[in-house]
Amino acid sequence: MAPVGVYDSGFGGLTVLRELRRALPELDYAYLGDSGRAPYGGRDVDTILDFAEQCVERLFGEGCRTVVVACHTVSCVALRHLQHRYGDAGRRVLGVTIPAAEAAVAQTRGHIGFLGTARTVASHTFRTEVHKLAPGVTVSEVAAPLLAPLVEEAWEDTDIARLAVQRYLVKFHGIDTLVLGCTHYPLLEHAFRELASKDLTVLNPAPGVAARFAVWRERHPGLAPVGSGRLRILSSGDTARFAASAARFLGETPPSVEHIAERGGRLAPCAEGAEPLGQVVR
Amino acid sequence: MAPVGVYDSGFGGLTVLRELRRALPELDYAYLGDSGRAPYGGRDVDTILDFAEQCVERLFGEGCRTVVVACHTVSCVALRHLQHRYGDAGRRVLGVTIPAAEAAVAQTRGHIGFLGTARTVASHTFRTEVHKLAPGVTVSEVAAPLLAPLVEEAWEDTDIARLAVQRYLVKFHGIDTLVLGCTHYPLLEHAFRELASKDLTVLNPAPGVAARFAVWRERHPGLAPVGSGRLRILSSGDTARFAASAARFLGETPPSVEHIAERGGRLAPCAEGAEPLGQVVR
Repeated sequence: MAPVGVYDSGFGGLTVLRELRRALPELDYAYLGDSGRAPYGGRDVDTILDFAEQCVERLFGEGCRTVVVACHTVSCVALRHLQHRYGDAGRRVLGVTIPAAEAAVAQTRGHIGFLGTARTVASHTFRTEVHKLAPGVTVSEVAAPLLAPLVEEAWEDTDIARLAVQRYLVKFHGIDTLVLGCTHYPLLEHAFRELASKDLTVLNPAPGVAARFAVWRERHPGLAPVGSGRLRILSSGDTARFAASAARFLGETPPSVEHIAERGGRLAPCAEGAEPLGQVVR
Repeated sequence: MAPVGVYDSGFGGLTVLRELRRALPELDYAYLGDSGRAPYGGRDVDTILDFAEQCVERLFGEGCRTVVVACHTVSCVALRHLQHRYGDAGRRVLGVTIPAAEAAVAQTRGHIGFLGTARTVASHTFRTEVHKLAPGVTVSEVAAPLLAPLVEEAWEDTDIARLAVQRYLVKFHGIDTLVLGCTHYPLLEHAFRELASKDLTVLNPAPGVAARFAVWRERHPGLAPVGSGRLRILSSGDTARFAASAARFLGETPPSVEHIAERGGRLAPCAEGAEPLGQVVR
């Protein structure tokens, strides 16, 4: 009765949920995708903190004791804030940046490339975490603002995707390991592997996040108790569109998507279609 | 001393400003591009109303008596709200949807295509305005969520742009006139003309917006008084990036960009780089 919460700005975090369910299928999970307000990558800090608080509070409201912030943008900017605000003996907030840094450091021969949203890259949080583990490693960070919208459009198997990936790849020089630092990018992993030079390791951090979570959970079984493998999905966006995309990210048929929306500064269950569409006067 | 305010979510509205300055070069203008929070197209109504209020208030704070909302998304969703809230004998808020509808109706032989952001298309405001003018005209609306980010990335002259335009064009059937219903799309006008069938008219609404504004101004000279052709540009985004892109949109070298940022729910002048970038705790 205490699902593990997984929070992302949109669909992308389902690639993390997929690995969590593969590693720990006996747990219950509640996924919250804030698709109605995605992408977060170009937003200011105040907005990201506000949205992150709303989403984490919604998941705690659903009975979660642990929330995994799957979104790299939130993880790089707001994780410490969320941990200070919500973390206590009975509740935890975990992120993806440190597991991603650990996986990259374990892999690299000295020069890591990191691809993320504009906000993620501007934070330099990934580089900071790498340098805590391995001060001598070089980190090159590049923003790829077009890749997340491209995956949201379901165009990851098109020439457009391959051309965009190629344009971002040529911005790196001399890297041996490339971290896909946004939960959308694993959908483009095939394109990255096809277009990158053969000696470049393309790293999806999600399996590392799941492995690290499994180790953490052994020390904190009460915060992520064994359930019956149940899965709920909540989204602030169009649920039909979410359901259509979810299978691609999750790798299995998702349950029906429950709609939530901002009401009075909080994310609450909300019948879909309640959002007015034409001219609005308030 | 009362510039005409021109408001857009980002760079795109500079294509409207360009036409306004061509039609009425003797006026002063203040352009506000909310690039730090663009694109607006996937956002919920509450957020769009909030951002639009902040931006319009900033422009009135700069001495404007008239604000032209160049952004189709804001114009389709929030224009009536802005007019109710701020419009009075000494202040006006104008939009782009009605001029766009008028230009399209003047052009069409019976079937108009309209390309815009997800939110613009969901509002059906353009179709509503067309049907007020010409109830028998058919309107097909298609969302093109990738085009604005693509132009913001300055990739409009790449194969990626041409492939994306082609993918959106094939979603229309039987149209004779295509309205570029987002201020970013005129940067792709060349690609649209190259790829569309020869008998399809590709319509950039900006010249029509400027022509209609010039007529309106003759009746309201005090709301947009003659100045000395001065131009100020304010942006909530990276000013160096804005300056680098502005010339492409504006067709002339822009003045130095003044930075603004959200502070306590209002857009205020703000030294750039004041935004914290790493982990933030509030």
